[in-house]
Amino acid sequence: MSNFIRVFAPATISNVGPGFDLMGFAIDQPGDIIRMAKNKDNFIHIFNETDCCLPEDPEENVSSVGIQALLDQLKVQQGFDLIFEQKINPGSGIGSSAASAAAAVFGANALLGSPLNINQLLPAVLKGEFVASKSLHADNAAPALLGGFILIRDYHPIDLISLPYPADLICVVIHPDIEIKTSESRKLIPKEIKLETALEQCGNIAGLVTGLTTSNYELIGRSIKDVFAEPYRSATIPGYAELKEELLCMGAIGAGISGSGPSIFAFCRDSGMAGKIAEKMESIYSEKNIQSKVYISKISSSGTRVL
Amino acid sequence: MSNFIRVFAPATISNVGPGFDLMGFAIDQPGDIIRMAKNKDNFIHIFNETDCCLPEDPEENVSSVGIQALLDQLKVQQGFDLIFEQKINPGSGIGSSAASAAAAVFGANALLGSPLNINQLLPAVLKGEFVASKSLHADNAAPALLGGFILIRDYHPIDLISLPYPADLICVVIHPDIEIKTSESRKLIPKEIKLETALEQCGNIAGLVTGLTTSNYELIGRSIKDVFAEPYRSATIPGYAELKEELLCMGAIGAGISGSGPSIFAFCRDSGMAGKIAEKMESIYSEKNIQSKVYISKISSSGTRVL
Repeated sequence: MSNFIRVFAPATISNVGPGFDLMGFAIDQPGDIIRMAKNKDNFIHIFNETDCCLPEDPEENVSSVGIQALLDQLKVQQGFDLIFEQKINPGSGIGSSAASAAAAVFGANALLGSPLNINQLLPAVLKGEFVASKSLHADNAAPALLGGFILIRDYHPIDLISLPYPADLICVVIHPDIEIKTSESRKLIPKEIKLETALEQCGNIAGLVTGLTTSNYELIGRSIKDVFAEPYRSATIPGYAELKEELLCMGAIGAGISGSGPSIFAFCRDSGMAGKIAEKMESIYSEKNIQSKVYISKISSSGTRVL
Repeated sequence: MSNFIRVFAPATISNVGPGFDLMGFAIDQPGDIIRMAKNKDNFIHIFNETDCCLPEDPEENVSSVGIQALLDQLKVQQGFDLIFEQKINPGSGIGSSAASAAAAVFGANALLGSPLNINQLLPAVLKGEFVASKSLHADNAAPALLGGFILIRDYHPIDLISLPYPADLICVVIHPDIEIKTSESRKLIPKEIKLETALEQCGNIAGLVTGLTTSNYELIGRSIKDVFAEPYRSATIPGYAELKEELLCMGAIGAGISGSGPSIFAFCRDSGMAGKIAEKMESIYSEKNIQSKVYISKISSSGTRVL
């Protein structure tokens, strides 16, 4: 087994209020862990040691599609064995597909002797993630790969900006056990909007970025408001409005839907408050007889890496 | 004349690329200068020593409407004499109406013993400016009053954020002698837009704010792109596309329409380049037999003030 490497890719919170499709950040845990090695038969074999279901068809699997995109980009042929040791729950809204694609592409590149640098891996990761999300958006893939808090300023071509952020910002995420598919959730969002709605989102994303770069927590809080997706997606998450209101009353800096949901994130500054937020999140879903997992993490400056 | 005060309000560059209706900054010059004093007849009298035309009907004049809004807010009656010594050209796109309203309201408040602080004057200034622009937007009024580089994060209620910016940023503005009325120019802009267009603007305003707060000049430059207003307004300014392209080729950091035009601004970092940009601007309009005025200024941290 000495030719195997173990690769970790973190979960990510995307959208972050007004950053719909444009912003995301990595957290410390959970994440995907894949053991990987080259093989000799030119096929990508995927083995699953986790409890999660992974698509068996290679054309439906974000990892194999991502690796194939990398191989096409490099114009080489190579087979790999991938063993999933740990997997973020699919459909959780914390970048499960992005983490699998990022880990697989990063690992394959490493096993090939790192012909590409980490930034150059993003196109292959996006092609992998596309299989699951049916849309090209980098707000999970970019932070999963690179770590930190990422702004995708432009998609044509992709322009990633690594945002400064306050080091003491703590993120609490709850994943209630309801599956929402990004590809379905996306269909809820209108393709045409009012100019004044767009201006509201522009004001808030500019406010959020200013708050992050200047460590202005109140500004971060009042800027975490999404008028593009949240009005349509919130109805798909039982208890969302109630939970958000409670968290803000308790003193959370801000709260919102993570990705397309059902996960919900909140920001706070101290670990005592983070614990209280986590308890409140769990108790609200427990009352609804919905199982959940809660994660408390700082924003992680590390992205995908060999363990 | 000892009971007269002299009030200066600066010109302002609003929109600033992707900051349509949400961003603006003050420049050192030009500006409005009004001599003001209280009178005893409870009317607002406006005298004009400048070459510019000012509306004689008090209900059409931004200064008198602004002062009346202040008096209504304070629930007091008072007449004033206003003598315009210096006036930014109306319809220039560098905040002429905002400057007149800001100077008048600021001066009236000062003459009343400053019952309100400067932030509290904004509603009255906006009511004044509304007379000219027929829309409530604060991206000229707020920086004219407060100085600096202002983000209007929200309009309901108004939330002004004073943005950090690199101290060495120089703004060159040309005002070609073509009058464009904001109220007319605004009608060109569609009220419904595609979501993807909105996301492009969101990415760019977030990029611009990040560039400003982190002194990343390249990021400022590539973020100064407006997909809401510029595609419709640029056709109303002869030579705009050509001039913008030339300025960027010369090495300007970024360039765009100031407000609703016809003024055009460009950013650069050194005074040598600013001089070259100014020459290029003038020569392009001179070739078209259009008279113009050019101003070179840093972003001014000072807003409206008693001289």
